[in-house]
Amino acid sequence: MGDFEGVVPAIATPMDREGRFNERVFRKIVAFNIQAGVHGFWVAGGTGESVLLDDGENKQIASAIVDQARGRAKVIMHVGAPTTDRAARLAEHAARAGADALCCVPPFFYRRDDDDIAEHYRIVAGAADLPLFVYNLPGATGVEITPRMMAKIQDRVPQLTGLKHSALTFANVQTFAQMELSCFIGNHRLMLPAMTIGACGCVDGPLNVLPELWVAIWTAYRAGDLQAAEAAQEKATHAYDALSASGGFHSVIKAALSARLGIDCGDPRPPGKPVSDAQRAQIEETMAKLV
Amino acid sequence: MGDFEGVVPAIATPMDREGRFNERVFRKIVAFNIQAGVHGFWVAGGTGESVLLDDGENKQIASAIVDQARGRAKVIMHVGAPTTDRAARLAEHAARAGADALCCVPPFFYRRDDDDIAEHYRIVAGAADLPLFVYNLPGATGVEITPRMMAKIQDRVPQLTGLKHSALTFANVQTFAQMELSCFIGNHRLMLPAMTIGACGCVDGPLNVLPELWVAIWTAYRAGDLQAAEAAQEKATHAYDALSASGGFHSVIKAALSARLGIDCGDPRPPGKPVSDAQRAQIEETMAKLV
Amino acid sequence: MGDFEGVVPAIATPMDREGRFNERVFRKIVAFNIQAGVHGFWVAGGTGESVLLDDGENKQIASAIVDQARGRAKVIMHVGAPTTDRAARLAEHAARAGADALCCVPPFFYRRDDDDIAEHYRIVAGAADLPLFVYNLPGATGVEITPRMMAKIQDRVPQLTGLKHSALTFANVQTFAQMELSCFIGNHRLMLPAMTIGACGCVDGPLNVLPELWVAIWTAYRAGDLQAAEAAQEKATHAYDALSASGGFHSVIKAALSARLGIDCGDPRPPGKPVSDAQRAQIEETMAKLV
Amino acid sequence: MGDFEGVVPAIATPMDREGRFNERVFRKIVAFNIQAGVHGFWVAGGTGESVLLDDGENKQIASAIVDQARGRAKVIMHVGAPTTDRAARLAEHAARAGADALCCVPPFFYRRDDDDIAEHYRIVAGAADLPLFVYNLPGATGVEITPRMMAKIQDRVPQLTGLKHSALTFANVQTFAQMELSCFIGNHRLMLPAMTIGACGCVDGPLNVLPELWVAIWTAYRAGDLQAAEAAQEKATHAYDALSASGGFHSVIKAALSARLGIDCGDPRPPGKPVSDAQRAQIEETMAKLV
Repeated sequence: MGDFEGVVPAIATPMDREGRFNERVFRKIVAFNIQAGVHGFWVAGGTGESVLLDDGENKQIASAIVDQARGRAKVIMHVGAPTTDRAARLAEHAARAGADALCCVPPFFYRRDDDDIAEHYRIVAGAADLPLFVYNLPGATGVEITPRMMAKIQDRVPQLTGLKHSALTFANVQTFAQMELSCFIGNHRLMLPAMTIGACGCVDGPLNVLPELWVAIWTAYRAGDLQAAEAAQEKATHAYDALSASGGFHSVIKAALSARLGIDCGDPRPPGKPVSDAQRAQIEETMAKLV
Repeated sequence: MGDFEGVVPAIATPMDREGRFNERVFRKIVAFNIQAGVHGFWVAGGTGESVLLDDGENKQIASAIVDQARGRAKVIMHVGAPTTDRAARLAEHAARAGADALCCVPPFFYRRDDDDIAEHYRIVAGAADLPLFVYNLPGATGVEITPRMMAKIQDRVPQLTGLKHSALTFANVQTFAQMELSCFIGNHRLMLPAMTIGACGCVDGPLNVLPELWVAIWTAYRAGDLQAAEAAQEKATHAYDALSASGGFHSVIKAALSARLGIDCGDPRPPGKPVSDAQRAQIEETMAKLV
Repeated sequence: MGDFEGVVPAIATPMDREGRFNERVFRKIVAFNIQAGVHGFWVAGGTGESVLLDDGENKQIASAIVDQARGRAKVIMHVGAPTTDRAARLAEHAARAGADALCCVPPFFYRRDDDDIAEHYRIVAGAADLPLFVYNLPGATGVEITPRMMAKIQDRVPQLTGLKHSALTFANVQTFAQMELSCFIGNHRLMLPAMTIGACGCVDGPLNVLPELWVAIWTAYRAGDLQAAEAAQEKATHAYDALSASGGFHSVIKAALSARLGIDCGDPRPPGKPVSDAQRAQIEETMAKLV
Repeated sequence: MGDFEGVVPAIATPMDREGRFNERVFRKIVAFNIQAGVHGFWVAGGTGESVLLDDGENKQIASAIVDQARGRAKVIMHVGAPTTDRAARLAEHAARAGADALCCVPPFFYRRDDDDIAEHYRIVAGAADLPLFVYNLPGATGVEITPRMMAKIQDRVPQLTGLKHSALTFANVQTFAQMELSCFIGNHRLMLPAMTIGACGCVDGPLNVLPELWVAIWTAYRAGDLQAAEAAQEKATHAYDALSASGGFHSVIKAALSARLGIDCGDPRPPGKPVSDAQRAQIEETMAKLV
């Protein structure tokens, strides 16, 4: 097995009743996923409410998951922030806490040129001696990291190891793989097809709710069993479609995790909206059929 | 084998020195592709310079390919036009000429609502008793046929059989397949990954230049040989990347076909631009290495 | 008065019951607008169903409006077409028919590079010895003519005189004016604001329905009467808002013209959709209040 | 004079050599602008590096400008933040500090539905008893506040007073004005044209560098002198075009302010990039010609 590959859930950030990070519940989600055979975690990223967390929470999360995982799964810690300095300080902490790698969105809000983006990554990566994953998430950041832009980052950032590709340009997976980057596909519906053109695995939020379904895709794929892999991908896609019909992205993941694990993962941080009671009941009913 | 599936080249429309449709050369391209084992043709579509052809040319092309193919490969004839009436008359002719199916871009230039688009397809399809493929080509038409819009067309157009999906929303392949539509992926780099989530095959221009490379993907995939299928897709992608480095879409396809078949396929119709002499020499050299 | 400026309605193309160009009614619309004091016409353009017309209709329209206008208003004839050759032949005819200027959308459907676009304009303009207006209509053509691209056209096309700017980049009006181009704003709500930063007038469809309202803006603006100009612009905007609440762009213009002139302007050409009976009644009622 | 109107510079946030907020220099910029006759300030917004500031800095800035302005110009304080709670706490502070109004970008990074956006504004506005301005800045936030969405906010947020409109949909200025909102145009090139369709003034960064040029537009406009207003707008546009040719948005504003006031406004906060020495020299030379 390579260093970074396979089923890598983008783990949720559970909250308590006051809306603060709930470390106890977070550790349970980590443990459950490791039990299910995942290969790593993408932590405090898009699914984990990333830029809605304050820096203290980000650091607490980093320390907690490293401690809980105890080397049984890779920890890829998100350190993206509006300023280069804040991102660099989070990177420093992640390294000290024992994370296996960093991931980082490009600068957002203000549009930056390629040079500024590469320089941002150079400084953030330089603050820690860890492999770096670019987080290509144009729907949130407003900037797509194209292969051309990635080549500039690759030139300037020796720590660059790979990316999570959550842009619509699916065919770029092949291009990134050819650039010797570990490319995780950032769409749970596309794990199998992405691997057939060079992706090293999948990072997405649904994977931390029903990890065994994506582990099954991985297992069939690695065994070269095309039919089983297709059936596993279809099963996983349908399962999450059934859940996600009942609400928004973060609220469904938290409600579904709560239903699955019998714990209270809390609500999305506002302006995120919780599921309604009816949606929660629907998610619980669907989950009961799925597992 | 299903009715419409597999390797379906989007065939070029060769021109003579005066820039008119060259039927003699066109028939040679058809024959070459059938020889190579393709399953059908997407005719006078995006690669075939579609809306740059006049209606007389479209009709001559339809008649020529039906006559040349003699049932050995499916003929899916493009009848898209700016007005509903022109598209319907082309559909009528395609049916009379013996085409196996129609394909049609949605109305373009002026933005239309879902209702107008569905009505356009209803009338065009009603002009011929043939299976209909929607041509989902938002880069050219400015409108993406989403699964929701497709459901409206499906409701109203009994002839609807499938689509060519040339939009960036790759995951919709799975959704269209689930709607029991024959979904061809419209990107030669994505034939294998698309099939793993339900696509029935691939329609694209590069396929009529090097058809054997995509036939190899199809064969390996049907045999359930995942590794061979991946290797075949990678080989096909790299081969066409090498060719397409030397010019624009239509000009490269025509120059590459000319080099491959030892015939003169002519230039793109203006405002399309021909390859330069240097580009043509490069394409000939690359082709010599590829075959 | 400069050669091309002021109130320039984008004239509709009326159809008869069989959906063919209705020259008799067209001449009435021309006469009505000249009577109202317009300075020119933008003919067979976006409002005039441009690319839905066949070339014979385009030529008949050109001849009819030149004959009807008899020099009392400028005729700016649209000659845009999918191929360079068709556009050039329409340009040739427009010149022979006696048009005062040409206008032309850039190539559409297939994406072209700047060089192809400039070359297209060079050939089309070269087919006629007339001033040329670029028709900057990215919502329909998929390509926005930026000031940088316009500079390339200006370098290569001596006939270039101006443009109709129907893109969202409103501040470019000032840039185009600074390039010594006659820039018509292509939005009836923005005639006055555009003139304050250098626009030479307005081209849009609503102007051929209620021409006197935009003539009033022009008159007040030329008199330097800021308050009157603002009041006139507000009145014109509100008037057309009231009409356009009842249907789609082309159908409302045709129904409103029918109501205004007591003639039958027909329906949009399909896939354009006619107004419903209820919408028509509403438009007639609104028109009765407006005039 | 209405409560909020006229020339409202989006004031820069000067930094010291260590990259921290420089209150002393900030007060000088405030004083200079008041001297030049501006009517208010848009504080810690887009030009002021908004989301790159930490909350402590935002609060210090609010207190400093209220103290420095002493009621001679309105203070519209930006309180936008990734979470509703942080924005609400900044709003609370701004009210305590004595700001005249709040402004706030909609939630960014994650896409929110209309309901979430309206709820975000309701809570933020509810934390302070001050007039609220929406900051419509889709280039940074990824979401455009359309008139329809604004109507929902208006329904739910009694404090809503107006907006800064920095979207491309220029004609919406008229629609917002009709909704009885105070609409500042967020583009220094469009102050005059926007006022002719109902804008109450202009908010933009260049105004704090050369405030007298936009004050001249305001004065001529209020006097009903159309020609003088046009000349003033053209002069202002050209002046800032000359400066902005030498670098990026924030770096030019800071370098130009430094040159104008003979003080050191510092550099943009990274990932923002400072001007080069050559750019700084060019800006100084241009400024010397302008004033």
